[in-house]
Amino acid sequence: MAAQETDAGSRITITEIARQAGVSVPTVSRVVNGRSDVSPQTRARVEDLLRRHGYRRRPASSPSRAALLDLVFNDLDSPWTVEIIRGVEEEAHTAGVGTVVSAVHGRSGDAREWIRTLRARASDGVILVTSALESSLHEELRILGVPLVVVDPGGSPGLDVPTIGAANWSGGLAATQHLLSLGHRRIGLIAGPPRLLCSRARLDGYRAALEGAGVTPDDTLVVPGDFRPESGHAGCHALLDLPEPPTALFAAGDQMALGAVEALRGRGLRVPQDMSVVGFDDLPEVRWSAPPLTTIRQPLADMGALAVRTVLRLTRGEQPDSPRVELGTDLVVRASTAPPAS
Amino acid sequence: MAAQETDAGSRITITEIARQAGVSVPTVSRVVNGRSDVSPQTRARVEDLLRRHGYRRRPASSPSRAALLDLVFNDLDSPWTVEIIRGVEEEAHTAGVGTVVSAVHGRSGDAREWIRTLRARASDGVILVTSALESSLHEELRILGVPLVVVDPGGSPGLDVPTIGAANWSGGLAATQHLLSLGHRRIGLIAGPPRLLCSRARLDGYRAALEGAGVTPDDTLVVPGDFRPESGHAGCHALLDLPEPPTALFAAGDQMALGAVEALRGRGLRVPQDMSVVGFDDLPEVRWSAPPLTTIRQPLADMGALAVRTVLRLTRGEQPDSPRVELGTDLVVRASTAPPAS
Repeated sequence: MAAQETDAGSRITITEIARQAGVSVPTVSRVVNGRSDVSPQTRARVEDLLRRHGYRRRPASSPSRAALLDLVFNDLDSPWTVEIIRGVEEEAHTAGVGTVVSAVHGRSGDAREWIRTLRARASDGVILVTSALESSLHEELRILGVPLVVVDPGGSPGLDVPTIGAANWSGGLAATQHLLSLGHRRIGLIAGPPRLLCSRARLDGYRAALEGAGVTPDDTLVVPGDFRPESGHAGCHALLDLPEPPTALFAAGDQMALGAVEALRGRGLRVPQDMSVVGFDDLPEVRWSAPPLTTIRQPLADMGALAVRTVLRLTRGEQPDSPRVELGTDLVVRASTAPPAS
Repeated sequence: MAAQETDAGSRITITEIARQAGVSVPTVSRVVNGRSDVSPQTRARVEDLLRRHGYRRRPASSPSRAALLDLVFNDLDSPWTVEIIRGVEEEAHTAGVGTVVSAVHGRSGDAREWIRTLRARASDGVILVTSALESSLHEELRILGVPLVVVDPGGSPGLDVPTIGAANWSGGLAATQHLLSLGHRRIGLIAGPPRLLCSRARLDGYRAALEGAGVTPDDTLVVPGDFRPESGHAGCHALLDLPEPPTALFAAGDQMALGAVEALRGRGLRVPQDMSVVGFDDLPEVRWSAPPLTTIRQPLADMGALAVRTVLRLTRGEQPDSPRVELGTDLVVRASTAPPAS
């Protein structure tokens, strides 16, 4: 946040940074421009000064130049990608700002190349989806003085940039309460990857709902998944193979729910007659899965739109309302849940 | 193509255009910049001259400026949107070019606003998905001298810009031949909207396969759809209500196929035991529909990548290999097709 905390009138010059670091102006310039011909010690000293003084590399944009935002994904293959792009594009379009979409594929080479082009196109701000960009690149963005906002459906810990997430715990609670209200007592959970906070939040919401209804959580009913359909398929088979299988499933992601539904179909079991299934996300495709899926809606487009408003606020030197905002999740009841077979 | 046909050395100036049109230089400038304070007659005369002389509005890009491509959709809500973005972004990223994604929502106001920002950001080229942009805007792009390539899964008639589509007729043929090879003889078709050439091409491929197998096409087995799941759902019910329903269905779009599968489930019919279903598109989600869908793969990401290579070729003043290219479609066999119940 250093770059935003500096008053525009007091901005430091490269000459002053060079003087304080005891190096030449071209050396500071090399650091600012990401060149490799600077010793690690010198680079660290200069970057520290740049950061402390909130140095902003770029001159104020000329009013005639078209504004651009960068929207950066790790990969463009997740089905919720397009929902976020849609929310970002609509909001940016309304503000007269173009949206540059990139994927860095979790490769630091691609990320560095992206930073280079970001600099060349003088992007006004960056919206990063998930925290996939390594922290050294967060640091480079900070040095460039480009405002950064993270859209983080996964719930990453310890980001010190404005972050927009979803209410994962409340969603896990609502999904499980829905199944309880239908009369289910043995409710399985196909969980998300433990390294993501959203997985833990949804699991905790599931447990809180059970306990709130007087049902003791049974850890044998919780199986691990990784959000991919394959893991929902395998997790569902594991739950069905238990001596006493559940009568309902909460899959902590829609794609895992679809994998579970396919596993049930493969065993000749019907949804919801033989097993109720609740997902999480409300991806567009689950409105027409067979059967249409009961799920928890994550407002991905709204999260993208809020990210645009936040990053545009940062470009004007304003502060975000809150460093971390979680948008509410909603239960959407469709055809994949019913009371247990009596 | 006028803009590309002009030799760089012989480029005409605004002054010369003004002289030939018998108007002032500011008037030509107003036309070039899309201002409204020019009479329709004058505008037509000036635009005709600009076009005939292949006037390129923008100066050659400076080598230091970051290159940008604009990728424009009508809407960002189609499930194949992300496949095209993925193909475009990967290819553009490799070429060091940023991808600006926009949606114009079929509204001419949005399209004009997009043209304005396109001009301001000095985009190097435009990839338009479908021909949704009205032809007057094609014309504006031509006058601006921005190379344009159309990615057109729908098969639009009469575009005079380089266009990349898919082999729709061959896909319809392959889908139907697959069902014939399994032993089906009464094969229903849920067709796409008649206004799109791709719908007709898939229908013709379906008929050609039937005739090639000695089966007389029966028009009562062809029902209309609009590519949305709702229309596949309704179309499937209509086919099931026939006195002699088909034993297999070809839905000319995956989303319609998913709607049909849900209609079958709603009637207690199993896929593929009671009815085989083939889709068209190979959207990512149909790999995990229940059951996983046999379909015709459209190489959407490859179409996007080829569009990038084509538009970059145009920016270098080269000609495309061919004004219209169709990439091949492939049959992908999964679990939704089987021999008819005997």
